[in-house]
Amino acid sequence: MTTEVKLSPRERLLEAAATLTYRDGVGIGVEALCKAAGVSKRSMYQLFESKDELLAASLKERSSAYAASLLPAADDNRSPRERILHVFEQVESQSGTPEFHGCRYLAVQVELKDQSHPASRVAHQVKTNLTAFFRAEAEQDGASDPDLLARQLSLVFDGASARAGIQADNLTGLVAPTVTTLLDAAGVR
Amino acid sequence: MTTEVKLSPRERLLEAAATLTYRDGVGIGVEALCKAAGVSKRSMYQLFESKDELLAASLKERSSAYAASLLPAADDNRSPRERILHVFEQVESQSGTPEFHGCRYLAVQVELKDQSHPASRVAHQVKTNLTAFFRAEAEQDGASDPDLLARQLSLVFDGASARAGIQADNLTGLVAPTVTTLLDAAGVR
Repeated sequence: MTTEVKLSPRERLLEAAATLTYRDGVGIGVEALCKAAGVSKRSMYQLFESKDELLAASLKERSSAYAASLLPAADDNRSPRERILHVFEQVESQSGTPEFHGCRYLAVQVELKDQSHPASRVAHQVKTNLTAFFRAEAEQDGASDPDLLARQLSLVFDGASARAGIQADNLTGLVAPTVTTLLDAAGVR
Repeated sequence: MTTEVKLSPRERLLEAAATLTYRDGVGIGVEALCKAAGVSKRSMYQLFESKDELLAASLKERSSAYAASLLPAADDNRSPRERILHVFEQVESQSGTPEFHGCRYLAVQVELKDQSHPASRVAHQVKTNLTAFFRAEAEQDGASDPDLLARQLSLVFDGASARAGIQADNLTGLVAPTVTTLLDAAGVR
């Protein structure tokens, strides 16, 4: 027997914003969001100052789950090299699902084209955290230039997500050899 | 003395579509496009079947200039390695301008989230041509796996454009070492 958890209007709005903007883009209208959430516009504006704030909140709400879906457990006893490769295995695996449109935190920034938008700020922070993970692992392993390696891995991550998201590449046989080559060159064994 | 070239309504619409969608996204309205072009909606719909077709035509119109802004001359007598690096020097240089929002052909596909959209099809073809350039150069130089290298270079290209476009990275000291490492690993000297 499944216990159905009743979501609050706030939770339903966050869920609708996350789902619909990922699928259709940030241009999705307030009407559509409220309709999907089963919440009146009046209630929405009581809960969120604006659609922009709702979008930012929905991205923030998802950020822990996003990090958990990509990063290895803090204490998994694997080497930094394996822990970095773990992230890219997740990307490759996630990109195989039909509803994949690339990294939502990259997409929202590409779409908004305004880095001062509240949602762009949230997305920027989430991506900065990922680069910081790469940097910490690179440093832990004594990479020759941890900053450069972290930037390279972030670039590969975003390039892979974007290309899989637009169906330009299925990533098979691409990401692991690319990351491995960069790790080798940086002395991360 | 400058000679002013008078653009036709069609040319003005193509120009407005290219400029405004790049700056503001594909959600830009028909009213705004017509206003910027100084063309009535009625005239627009006489020239283009729909906003989608206008967007596709504007991307197609720009595609030769786009390729010319990135690719080396066909007969420049440089090595494939130098010719590949030329493309990435262009990306790094273009990304330094304040109006840079990343590769327009990537952005439009990320935004539309629909690979069957006429504009996505045009964009997809333009990106496929770039991958084909990388592949031809890689093969010319006897790369160990020209297909893999072409996919890797396309991934780096899109990752670099995207990250510079969202101001996550200024690309300085990043792109050349990354591409060089991948070329070395593929045996392209």
